[in-house]
Amino acid sequence: MPILVMKFGGTSVANIDRIRRAAKRVGVEVAKGYDVIVIVSAMAGRTNELVGWVDEISPFYDAREYDAVVSSGENITAGLMALTLQEMDVPARSWQGWQVPLKTTSAHSAARIEEIPTDNINAKFSEGMRVAVVAGFQGVSPEGRITTLGRGGSDTTAVAFAAAFDAERCDIYTDVDGVYTTDPRITAKARKLDKIAFEEMLELASLGAKVLQTRSVELAMRYNVKLRVLSSFEEQSDTAGTLVCAEEEIMESNVVNGIAYSRDEAKMTLVSVADRPGIAAAIFGPLSDAGVNVDMIVQNISEEGRTDMTFSCPVGQVTRAEKALREAKTRGDINFHDLIADTEVAKVSAVGIGMRSQSGVAARMFKTLSAEGINIKVIATSEIKISVLIDRKYMELAVQALHDAFGLEKAA
Amino acid sequence: MPILVMKFGGTSVANIDRIRRAAKRVGVEVAKGYDVIVIVSAMAGRTNELVGWVDEISPFYDAREYDAVVSSGENITAGLMALTLQEMDVPARSWQGWQVPLKTTSAHSAARIEEIPTDNINAKFSEGMRVAVVAGFQGVSPEGRITTLGRGGSDTTAVAFAAAFDAERCDIYTDVDGVYTTDPRITAKARKLDKIAFEEMLELASLGAKVLQTRSVELAMRYNVKLRVLSSFEEQSDTAGTLVCAEEEIMESNVVNGIAYSRDEAKMTLVSVADRPGIAAAIFGPLSDAGVNVDMIVQNISEEGRTDMTFSCPVGQVTRAEKALREAKTRGDINFHDLIADTEVAKVSAVGIGMRSQSGVAARMFKTLSAEGINIKVIATSEIKISVLIDRKYMELAVQALHDAFGLEKAA
Repeated sequence: MPILVMKFGGTSVANIDRIRRAAKRVGVEVAKGYDVIVIVSAMAGRTNELVGWVDEISPFYDAREYDAVVSSGENITAGLMALTLQEMDVPARSWQGWQVPLKTTSAHSAARIEEIPTDNINAKFSEGMRVAVVAGFQGVSPEGRITTLGRGGSDTTAVAFAAAFDAERCDIYTDVDGVYTTDPRITAKARKLDKIAFEEMLELASLGAKVLQTRSVELAMRYNVKLRVLSSFEEQSDTAGTLVCAEEEIMESNVVNGIAYSRDEAKMTLVSVADRPGIAAAIFGPLSDAGVNVDMIVQNISEEGRTDMTFSCPVGQVTRAEKALREAKTRGDINFHDLIADTEVAKVSAVGIGMRSQSGVAARMFKTLSAEGINIKVIATSEIKISVLIDRKYMELAVQALHDAFGLEKAA
Repeated sequence: MPILVMKFGGTSVANIDRIRRAAKRVGVEVAKGYDVIVIVSAMAGRTNELVGWVDEISPFYDAREYDAVVSSGENITAGLMALTLQEMDVPARSWQGWQVPLKTTSAHSAARIEEIPTDNINAKFSEGMRVAVVAGFQGVSPEGRITTLGRGGSDTTAVAFAAAFDAERCDIYTDVDGVYTTDPRITAKARKLDKIAFEEMLELASLGAKVLQTRSVELAMRYNVKLRVLSSFEEQSDTAGTLVCAEEEIMESNVVNGIAYSRDEAKMTLVSVADRPGIAAAIFGPLSDAGVNVDMIVQNISEEGRTDMTFSCPVGQVTRAEKALREAKTRGDINFHDLIADTEVAKVSAVGIGMRSQSGVAARMFKTLSAEGINIKVIATSEIKISVLIDRKYMELAVQALHDAFGLEKAA
């Protein structure tokens, strides 16, 4: 029988009533003839409670014990979901990570999946079991200890199971009904997308549109797993939600499919840096060591052997960045006249695979922002994305104007 | 290094502060030179919450899923305890049942321990780990599924580990400071016992003195594990609590060491039963099939081929017992004139290994009750116990009078 993977997030299994509602959705797919693998998160709030206890004990905890504690939330949901399905006369059983066993690296709290043996679960399917309920977010290390995949890791678990079992599709049930052209809180014209390409989803996810964990999208792209994002609180239908899929499966697409933003950015400029080979490494090495996530980088035209170097990073990392750079100056590794931090900026990005074949997107973006009187501070581009840094106070205006300019309220 | 097993019940690990207090006690034993195996229960209230969810889903649940859900409470405590010990610079790690692996039968929710391999934990001890924190109450079946040992199973886990690792002693930390001669709520003269024999503890436990799970005492007796019951809320000392040990280790003992009671008993009498070989089986077979826990049985002297048969059972099982007996009568398996249930009785027992060598205990018991005007309805005796069924309204009076009569307020 064809296999479907269904993943339910924390709000979708927050209490017994919601677990029942989720189980009914599973029952519908079983009735259609699917063997289903259900991946569950911890009941909403549970993981935070467990993390809170660990934090109360020590800020410097053993990640192996942290994983052993925090993974228990998913185990509870898995058992409860199996019981609920059984009560509905759907043959089901639960698996904890070590029972599959879902083998991972030993990088506790951020483990990577190495192998998912299918024989154990497939044997139960052939004996008549219809639903395997698997605790998400967790696995077991080569040393036999419990590992977790990092926050949001249940999405990754779901995609990995879909790949391992060659599932027809991986449905991610969450509390939003799909992926939107932009944040509906910023413009009412925001439209739910029926389909979006993996590459676009990756750009949107990394830009802060928190529907799917980035790693799960990367994994889906690599194994070509069809991912569907849909709400567990709305009517079920075959076209509900947003399908995240390969570019080839999207017939028509707008040039730009999404306007993303990131509010809490900072722009830092090193004024008059001695320009010599290796200077970039001398600047960004210490920043990386200090845990600063540098995003955009611009180097101004140099004159007389000196240059201005500008970069952006999350606003919460500015103090850390300043400290690292001043220390590097003290050591004599770099030299600059001044260090200027602008902590009142935001990033706005246009994303679309259509950019590959259509020119003029950047020009239209700059013209739109200019018409609104918005000054662009830094520009960065990739094959399917253009990002600009602007004053934070203009962020909502920029998103609305670009959404209009690229005609995102209408489908292609 | 000598090994000590320390078990902490739910109230002793109810929150992070209490886990810290328990960890400090462990630290004291480590400082004395012990390698310690800590067995933990779920934080107080957790198991009830988990059981509540299962019950909300279905009254007819799959015990395998029930075990998977309910065992998670102990896993959480084990991780938190290991983290707390590490924070105190005591080298520690946690083990879940399947990681030991603590092998059990497949009798889910009431599994029996089959084997505890020691190599895994001993290897860590020889590498310098000082505390192995083990999640109590749980194990793994031959099929690789999680099992639980039944309510209170963490006591049994603790004793089994003490036996497997040849521990010097097994300390059970709980919310009472030891085993008393009787319930201190009934008489202020109740005295904490310094020592009590396994056999006596077994009788007291099965009579309703809920300090230790009966199975754990049986296991301790079989493997001669020294068990100490003590409070985690009082000062630590080497003589705190009550030591449950072999009879030989108790030099002096009162003839009677404890007065136990069981409040909610019922007495049922089958009036004028046809007395023939096999009649007891014909009566008690159906009761057993109906899940009635028959305790005391008395058969009155028969006349003209008929007899009265009296037995006691928990008051909550009277309806079930009546139904089973009337159905047996309808089927023609038994015959009786009347069935009388007295639901206003209680059981009071005197327990002491000294009864083996001293006569006159029963006589003194009957005389004491008679002096208080208390009528005895049923009597049952074993080698170290005399139990009587009396009107419930006299129960407290009987306990107080017997405690006085046998001089229990003073040590031998």
